[in-house]
Amino acid sequence: MSEMSGKSVCVIGAGVAGLVSTKECLASGFEPTCYEKDNDIGGIWNYKESSSQGDPSLYASCVLNTSKTMTCFSDFSFPEEYPNFPHHSYFKKYLNMYAEHFELRNRIKFKHKILNVSKTNDSETTSEWRVTVQNMASGSTSSLIYDFVIVCNGHFYDPFIPDIKGLDSFEGEYIHSHGYKNFKGFEGKRVLVVGLGNSAGDIASELSRHAEHVFMSTRHGTYTVPRALDNGLPFDMVGIRRLYSYLPEAIKRMVFYRQLNSRINHSNYGIAPNHPFTMRDMIVNDELPTRILVGSLNMKPDITQFKAKSVLFEDGSEERIDKVVFATGYEYSIPFLETSTLTIEQRFPYLYKQIVPPGVGPHTLAVVGLVGTNAPVVPLLEMQARYAVRLFGGHITLPPQEQMKSSCERRKQTLEKMFGREIRFNIFVNYMDYMDDLAADVGCSPKTCWYLATNPRLWWKVLAGPVVPAQYRLEGPGKMPQSLRNNHGR
Amino acid sequence: MSEMSGKSVCVIGAGVAGLVSTKECLASGFEPTCYEKDNDIGGIWNYKESSSQGDPSLYASCVLNTSKTMTCFSDFSFPEEYPNFPHHSYFKKYLNMYAEHFELRNRIKFKHKILNVSKTNDSETTSEWRVTVQNMASGSTSSLIYDFVIVCNGHFYDPFIPDIKGLDSFEGEYIHSHGYKNFKGFEGKRVLVVGLGNSAGDIASELSRHAEHVFMSTRHGTYTVPRALDNGLPFDMVGIRRLYSYLPEAIKRMVFYRQLNSRINHSNYGIAPNHPFTMRDMIVNDELPTRILVGSLNMKPDITQFKAKSVLFEDGSEERIDKVVFATGYEYSIPFLETSTLTIEQRFPYLYKQIVPPGVGPHTLAVVGLVGTNAPVVPLLEMQARYAVRLFGGHITLPPQEQMKSSCERRKQTLEKMFGREIRFNIFVNYMDYMDDLAADVGCSPKTCWYLATNPRLWWKVLAGPVVPAQYRLEGPGKMPQSLRNNHGR
Repeated sequence: MSEMSGKSVCVIGAGVAGLVSTKECLASGFEPTCYEKDNDIGGIWNYKESSSQGDPSLYASCVLNTSKTMTCFSDFSFPEEYPNFPHHSYFKKYLNMYAEHFELRNRIKFKHKILNVSKTNDSETTSEWRVTVQNMASGSTSSLIYDFVIVCNGHFYDPFIPDIKGLDSFEGEYIHSHGYKNFKGFEGKRVLVVGLGNSAGDIASELSRHAEHVFMSTRHGTYTVPRALDNGLPFDMVGIRRLYSYLPEAIKRMVFYRQLNSRINHSNYGIAPNHPFTMRDMIVNDELPTRILVGSLNMKPDITQFKAKSVLFEDGSEERIDKVVFATGYEYSIPFLETSTLTIEQRFPYLYKQIVPPGVGPHTLAVVGLVGTNAPVVPLLEMQARYAVRLFGGHITLPPQEQMKSSCERRKQTLEKMFGREIRFNIFVNYMDYMDDLAADVGCSPKTCWYLATNPRLWWKVLAGPVVPAQYRLEGPGKMPQSLRNNHGR
Repeated sequence: MSEMSGKSVCVIGAGVAGLVSTKECLASGFEPTCYEKDNDIGGIWNYKESSSQGDPSLYASCVLNTSKTMTCFSDFSFPEEYPNFPHHSYFKKYLNMYAEHFELRNRIKFKHKILNVSKTNDSETTSEWRVTVQNMASGSTSSLIYDFVIVCNGHFYDPFIPDIKGLDSFEGEYIHSHGYKNFKGFEGKRVLVVGLGNSAGDIASELSRHAEHVFMSTRHGTYTVPRALDNGLPFDMVGIRRLYSYLPEAIKRMVFYRQLNSRINHSNYGIAPNHPFTMRDMIVNDELPTRILVGSLNMKPDITQFKAKSVLFEDGSEERIDKVVFATGYEYSIPFLETSTLTIEQRFPYLYKQIVPPGVGPHTLAVVGLVGTNAPVVPLLEMQARYAVRLFGGHITLPPQEQMKSSCERRKQTLEKMFGREIRFNIFVNYMDYMDDLAADVGCSPKTCWYLATNPRLWWKVLAGPVVPAQYRLEGPGKMPQSLRNNHGR
């Protein structure tokens, strides 16, 4: 089995990205060691009653916003009895099952924190990494050499609060969504939620049931996608189909735009983006329109100023506010990597294909999980992990450094043009395009034309059905037995 | 102004029905006195922190389930700044404004309870009523004679709990929805909500955010209508249009059925009624499907038995249950009326056109508000009040008693055939049919054909636009000035 037996990999973090990276390393015969500073797997899904600085944090009511059918690992389904959109506690249980099934736990060193990762020497040709690890229980530090490193430290632990005029003179309380757990302490208050991402939508909807009134401030607006689309089918099972991705961009855009606006006219509800539709500004939310309709929640434009007890908005309005939740995203940082290894400029991480830092010699370090999309993230992280492992195995040839760097630069400019400086889009990828691009490199793209000749039923499923993650286990390395061909996409 | 000046009317209750009855009496020159046992107007909308036996009661989170545009009185709009679907506290404020605008408060005797209403003597030709009133402050009782009586005591105060095997041996807690105020006390419990009416849907959805798990038991199932339909327009503004009511029943049914199932397939979600679609079994609810989808709430069939700590269902399943909420409706009773005046048999009130008890001599007593529909109730109560006042004024001729009685009997049989013994349907009317039927008697039907010739814009509004209540102020008694013709239905 072992194409790379003996070669050591240091996997940093045991969240979804770290787990799947460890698993993919094992499957290809590497010897992974996974370091996790917490005492359990799961990363952000390892829910805690209170948030602490430097750790990811989730709110109590959080429910997956993509369906279990589309969100699973490609070779490990959710249990049948799970609801379509499971609560985060169910997802954590699923990760436990995954870790047990693939025997990952004995590869993980819990309560170990990575302090530094650097080349063993400065030479361009050095491929090994020196990893400094702190055992958090004993406090002792050790320095270890690894052939490869996969960085999976996530991007939900370093809260970003924008610098807004007068915020320091605001006498009410303010927190970042990172510190938000539930509605307690907000009852009967006038609350402002800043931002309009998925968390902002969830938190504002929840608070609107308990606060006196909730305002949401947004610079750009968004479209809301309900978890269940027509006939009650999960939106991602409806929307993520290969057939659609073949449509010309303009038609795709028109179809999606009409679909998004068919339930509610987003302009009438004051949520619509103030720029042309790009297919990226959407959040998954079942409640926001209703909460607006019943008058518990109001949309507001950008903030111009905080005062002692109130907030001023761009439209000239002023509202008395008791509490503020900044759902304004996170900084992207990998504190244990030197800037010579990974450049993050204006909160944009320079990563070729969102995985490989272009600047360092033989490419023996990869970042898995510094990515966002408006579709299921789990299969995407798995694909990144598979890409990294294939890269380490020497099966993927990268273009020259300069070419990778200018590819990053072009991407940065495109994103800036489309979304300004909106931080969460700095790591944004289009799901189908990105998956298929990586799959081609990994060698696991479904052979659509071949199926037409050999298995028309499968061909039609792959072409017109939901792109379930198992579609990327039909071919290439790590492909699953024939039996899956008929069972996948159930 | 006064066509009936001097004639006295006793209005019993100062909820919506009582207020509009008092107002309509005044408008026609009667001398109404309204008795209210509470110390404020509003009936069920006079919200209290705790429920008390014999009074109507509302839960804290209750929001109108019909839009402000369709729910207002025909001659008194909601304030512009109100949300489309106002919270109950806003509706109470609206009632305060209404009472003030039409100077109703000085007609209301608060803290006065009606003990008995009966004919002054047994003669068939007696038209006056002896009303026994108790001053609840002093405790003193007085007996007064009135020319007319309008009974507006509502039907949300006498909770009905079905007799289910083993309920007395159940060791958990159970309450009726009448006693439900909010989620407190349900946190982390396994809850069963019995019934699938509007309250059941609201309560179960709310509890599913706080309980460990919520089950809903339903004998029949229902369809869920979101407050906002296509484009975000209130469902009642979309659905209540004169044009639709001209469609043949079968087509209407098909269109509605497809509309209802277009968002979610009710069968897949386990909510769909187990009998052919009748257009009546629907509830307004924005959340239920999502709560099912995320696995916080499960549908169950009818209960077969309660055990000490669990409940058995018809499908053979058994669930551990800590708390039960019976959202199983109310008994219909008017305790101060003798059965010779009003017959209620098998919880079916014998009322001609849901207003007039057929059995008593000259028709000087009317019941306003003992009615339900799947559309706004306020305009319907207003129409009943107008009908009652026109009847008292001698403008409406009723058919002979026997004919009215057999009309009630036929209605009872039809309802029984359609809905079995489901109590809430015993007072159910089809909104448009009922409104137009009463409007014809009152003389306030819009003259559609006439507008075609004289005011095509108005004609089109009346025909194809939402049937806003102001449509019944275009003609006949109490019609509003010409200016309204162009403004209504904004």
